[in-house]
Amino acid sequence: MTATAPLFDRIAIIGIGLIGSSLARAVPAYGLARTVVCGDRSEAACAKALELGIVAEATTDLEAAVDGADLVILCTPMGSFAEMGERLAPRLKPGTILTDVGSVKQAVLRDIGPHVPDGVHLIPGHPVAGTEHSGPEAGFASLFNGRWCILTPPTGANADAVEKVAGLWRRCGSNVETMDAAHHDRVLAITSHLPHLIAYTIVGTASDLEETTKSEVIKFSAGGFRDFTRIAASDPVMWRDVFLNNREAVLETLQLFTEDLTALQRAIRWGEGDRLQELFTRTRAIRRGIIDAKQA
Amino acid sequence: MTATAPLFDRIAIIGIGLIGSSLARAVPAYGLARTVVCGDRSEAACAKALELGIVAEATTDLEAAVDGADLVILCTPMGSFAEMGERLAPRLKPGTILTDVGSVKQAVLRDIGPHVPDGVHLIPGHPVAGTEHSGPEAGFASLFNGRWCILTPPTGANADAVEKVAGLWRRCGSNVETMDAAHHDRVLAITSHLPHLIAYTIVGTASDLEETTKSEVIKFSAGGFRDFTRIAASDPVMWRDVFLNNREAVLETLQLFTEDLTALQRAIRWGEGDRLQELFTRTRAIRRGIIDAKQA
Ligand SMILES: NC(=O)c1ccc[n+]([C@@H]2O[C@H](COP(=O)([O-])OP(=O)(O)OC[C@H]3O[C@@H](n4cnc5c(N)ncnc54)[C@H](OP(=O)(O)O)[C@@H]3O)[C@@H](O)[C@H]2O)c1
Ligand SMILES: NC(=O)c1ccc[n+]([C@@H]2O[C@H](COP(=O)([O-])OP(=O)(O)OC[C@H]3O[C@@H](n4cnc5c(N)ncnc54)[C@H](OP(=O)(O)O)[C@@H]3O)[C@@H](O)[C@H]2O)c1
Repeated sequence: MTATAPLFDRIAIIGIGLIGSSLARAVPAYGLARTVVCGDRSEAACAKALELGIVAEATTDLEAAVDGADLVILCTPMGSFAEMGERLAPRLKPGTILTDVGSVKQAVLRDIGPHVPDGVHLIPGHPVAGTEHSGPEAGFASLFNGRWCILTPPTGANADAVEKVAGLWRRCGSNVETMDAAHHDRVLAITSHLPHLIAYTIVGTASDLEETTKSEVIKFSAGGFRDFTRIAASDPVMWRDVFLNNREAVLETLQLFTEDLTALQRAIRWGEGDRLQELFTRTRAIRRGIIDAKQA
Repeated sequence: MTATAPLFDRIAIIGIGLIGSSLARAVPAYGLARTVVCGDRSEAACAKALELGIVAEATTDLEAAVDGADLVILCTPMGSFAEMGERLAPRLKPGTILTDVGSVKQAVLRDIGPHVPDGVHLIPGHPVAGTEHSGPEAGFASLFNGRWCILTPPTGANADAVEKVAGLWRRCGSNVETMDAAHHDRVLAITSHLPHLIAYTIVGTASDLEETTKSEVIKFSAGGFRDFTRIAASDPVMWRDVFLNNREAVLETLQLFTEDLTALQRAIRWGEGDRLQELFTRTRAIRRGIIDAKQA
């Protein structure tokens, strides 16, 4: 616990998976709240969270979990947000802040927005941090340290509520940026959603090959492939929901990618070495930027 | 130096970059030879190799570098192999072994094979290990440890020579596998060449975006993109040469990938969540295989 006073009194985390359990662990580590409780549809996840000692209470009764919380954080897959909004938002008292960690942000306003009662503050958020592991045991308090968290408050959102959510992420060690939900979804389509889609595709292509047996693909994966398999080991339900909920931006970005890939295909076919070398040289600059920005 | 006698008397490494300098460092570390020397076209690289103390002699006169060596290892980009074969192979005395570390293997037989005098043993090899860094300072002796090295000896190759080269890689801690050059090129097209092509493409696509500024791509790269930038920071000349020299297998594999990507695109467009989830679940098995095979 830090010397500073906790930011919240009682935080309710809904969905105690990788992100939810990392946040639960961050509560005592960074002095986020006096108490943290969780709601999760799975008995096993609730039991595990209690066993790990990362929450004070855990229940499969999600409505009960949010009772008396001054901050509710939705940490379930995007596809459950409409149901969560319908079930949980109406139970919140005026002054409560409702936030989430979903990877797509326009869908939050669409799915949860209509259910939020007057006086409850919906402040959508997205910590740009994660691993390929899932569940309550996969989390760790420092996951958000040195990473960015993006908030997409709707027009007219309560400034104090935005500041309180931003403060929570800053205590976790994150840099906070605020932007329009539509812009968020386009930026993340290229920096996160398309990379995952492509990694899933290439791993799928490899596992379908007949001649190259799976064992050879595994043996010789150190030549580049293994990095894709790590990304393609990410949670299937979470990623299904990301693609279904950020359809337009993903399809648009995919179109650009496909055009660029076709141009490279053509360069290889016609032996245009200069064109290949020019692109391969240009891409190094971005890597340098990422290293300089300490995001490597 | 290990207690066992060195495998070779004098090893000449041509091209003292990442792979060449890793091998040079491996010579004393694993008792590969009594002496290791290098030839490199660049004065600066030769000076650096001597300064680092990783070779006994270094010269820009590549013909002189191979004089008196009982093993010559070509560690330059694939595009230089025809010239290297023409200049160096005819100088080798009967009994000398000539090997390489090039990422494509049919091209070695095509480019170097015709220049190899009778009695000189051409045993092409490919250590499936590397990093995105280049040059003599980037190497380290343990690079090949726990990785695979593939040998593609031509039909009728001298069995003792094959065994000596295999022995060298085993001392470096590698597992050695022997296969047909054409098969190698198809397997590596999927496990290494296509992943690099795709990483280069997506990083290029991102750096061309107008709305998403480069600084945003860099900031929010922790969502998946940064792993692609690491791969796309690999040496441009080396990779240009890989694609030019493994054109057919790369184009064929790319075609399979594109078909699979189109199917996923369609699934996203039509909201076919089950199909997405099914693929995303299937790809996890390959990751598990890689972890079990200790190649993660
Ligand atoms: N992983 C990342 O890299 C990352 C990064 C940033 C943001 N996010 C976002 O964080 C959220 C959670 O991701 P995660 O990685 O923490 O996933 P996770 O480890 O799989 O945890 C998800 C949790 O939500 C529960 N859940 C799943 N479906 C549900 C439903 N229909 N109704 C109620 N609860 C449900 C799960 O319970 P069960 O065990 O019963 O399924 C589990 O406790 C997602 O919205 C994702 O977009 C993830
Ligand atoms: N990097 C990997 O991950 C990896 C893995 C397995 C196999 N390989 C193979 O290993 C070989 C070397 O790759 P590397 O990563 O070690 O590259 P690197 O660090 O860039 O080193 C290449 C060396 O070759 C020299 N060179 C370049 N072009 C030449 C030419 N036309 N004639 C003579 N010398 C030339 C370079 O000298 P300058 O400094 O003057 O250019 C440099 O010393 C390539 O064939 C590659 O396919 C690489």
